[in-house]
Amino acid sequence: MPGNLLPIVQSVLRLRAQVSAWRERGASVALVPTMGALHDGHISLIRLAKIQADRVVASVFVNPRQFGVGEDFEAYPRTELADAQRLTEAGCDLMYAPPAAEMYPDGFSTTVSVRGVSEGLCGAARPGHFDGVATVVSKLLIQVAPDVAIFGEKDYQQLAVIRRLTRDLDLTPKIIGAPIARASDGLALSSRNAYLDDAQRARAPRMYRVLTEAALALSAGDPVERVQAAARAALDACGFDQVDYLEVRNADTLQPPPDGPITRTVRVLAAVRLGRTRLIDNVAAEPPR
Amino acid sequence: MPGNLLPIVQSVLRLRAQVSAWRERGASVALVPTMGALHDGHISLIRLAKIQADRVVASVFVNPRQFGVGEDFEAYPRTELADAQRLTEAGCDLMYAPPAAEMYPDGFSTTVSVRGVSEGLCGAARPGHFDGVATVVSKLLIQVAPDVAIFGEKDYQQLAVIRRLTRDLDLTPKIIGAPIARASDGLALSSRNAYLDDAQRARAPRMYRVLTEAALALSAGDPVERVQAAARAALDACGFDQVDYLEVRNADTLQPPPDGPITRTVRVLAAVRLGRTRLIDNVAAEPPR
Repeated sequence: MPGNLLPIVQSVLRLRAQVSAWRERGASVALVPTMGALHDGHISLIRLAKIQADRVVASVFVNPRQFGVGEDFEAYPRTELADAQRLTEAGCDLMYAPPAAEMYPDGFSTTVSVRGVSEGLCGAARPGHFDGVATVVSKLLIQVAPDVAIFGEKDYQQLAVIRRLTRDLDLTPKIIGAPIARASDGLALSSRNAYLDDAQRARAPRMYRVLTEAALALSAGDPVERVQAAARAALDACGFDQVDYLEVRNADTLQPPPDGPITRTVRVLAAVRLGRTRLIDNVAAEPPR
Repeated sequence: MPGNLLPIVQSVLRLRAQVSAWRERGASVALVPTMGALHDGHISLIRLAKIQADRVVASVFVNPRQFGVGEDFEAYPRTELADAQRLTEAGCDLMYAPPAAEMYPDGFSTTVSVRGVSEGLCGAARPGHFDGVATVVSKLLIQVAPDVAIFGEKDYQQLAVIRRLTRDLDLTPKIIGAPIARASDGLALSSRNAYLDDAQRARAPRMYRVLTEAALALSAGDPVERVQAAARAALDACGFDQVDYLEVRNADTLQPPPDGPITRTVRVLAAVRLGRTRLIDNVAAEPPR
């Protein structure tokens, strides 16, 4: 028996009216920003949101400003009806799916940019990407004004950029990073996994294995540079079409840690290409006891 | 009999606590952002704010990020006690005077920038200035979250930048531009007028006369290019040490209007230097009936 879909709003005005109505009844609100093409990773964010707040808004917006020239904006999977069904099943309270003209009306001229954490890693490979992310996330946080907003740790650098802009612009939502959801073979769930053919899909989990081994070596006290060099070599040998980066970085600042055994929590991050598909992943490593 | 000064807060936390307390009692709130060194122009903004809302917050913050290298950040007049007295007399309810470390704590990395209206005019003469303005005003609007925010039309391009970012970032305050307050000889009131020696002060009002004559000619139907050229020549002959610009621009977009008689409201804007002091001013011109 198919039930009703959750309410879907397309304008800031209606979004705010609904959020205000909840607030008047004393409800707290969580936001889960997405670009749609929802998979189990997104649903895990919705579940976490439901624990954190009384009401959950999921935004579904494929943000043109965070795609570079030659990237996959046109090809990016759009599955709005299926997304609405999955959100409904997950108990999400509202889907906010603004058209591009609602987010960026004629004359739109403003950019939010974050230096520091946005540089290097994906920022080097995708110029302008994090400006697009920072701008749209600032808008979403201001539009919804939730108590908490939840982002997956798969986009770890993005999460760092969002934490930074939230603090710097005095935005009030609490930013929560959620653990990466993975397929049974370890591949991080991503809407872009849909681009992979069978052979690529079989090769893809090798990145996670390399990251995990590197994290284990770091936690065992192996020095950063040796682990990083070995992991890069291992990733290079995995048969990916390109390795954009493999880096060990401090978990909070995203700066390179000093060489030697790690003394703070770090993150091992990588990005590779399989054909035209770009995949990213990362794994935490705690310092040796 | 000196009365008590108005309450002064220095932290976002205390600011928000006060604003929340007002809101709980159903009061509306206006914000008047200033860099202190308050003069009658600022006080006219406070008076307008008191008409627009139940409670008025004036921020006093000399924003380092909107001063360029070699500009007058260090020299900019600081008169905080006198400012507090003037705000008290004007009936302002709260002075928000954050230290720089409260606005830009260690690690601060975010910039709000506005293209289009920020380009040319003062944007050309002061690279980075409007990024500094857009960033601090975004923060103030988010920190205070007022119903209305009031800015003087003297900084006309700044007002356009602020209107743009408010719309683009979906900020909720209504932005109100307030008429320019002038000395009896026409000179626009400015904290920087304090830098002028007697001879410079005597020369300064000539800019306003040139702007007024240009606006009258435009309203009489004289073509834009002719008026602009004549006004530039007149301004060049005023004895200023430098003329940064004199421009006729559409009042809303700040784009140059087509040549010929004006058909929409325009603004005639100028910036000049007297010694090391940079003065700006502008005057509206309505199209001929």
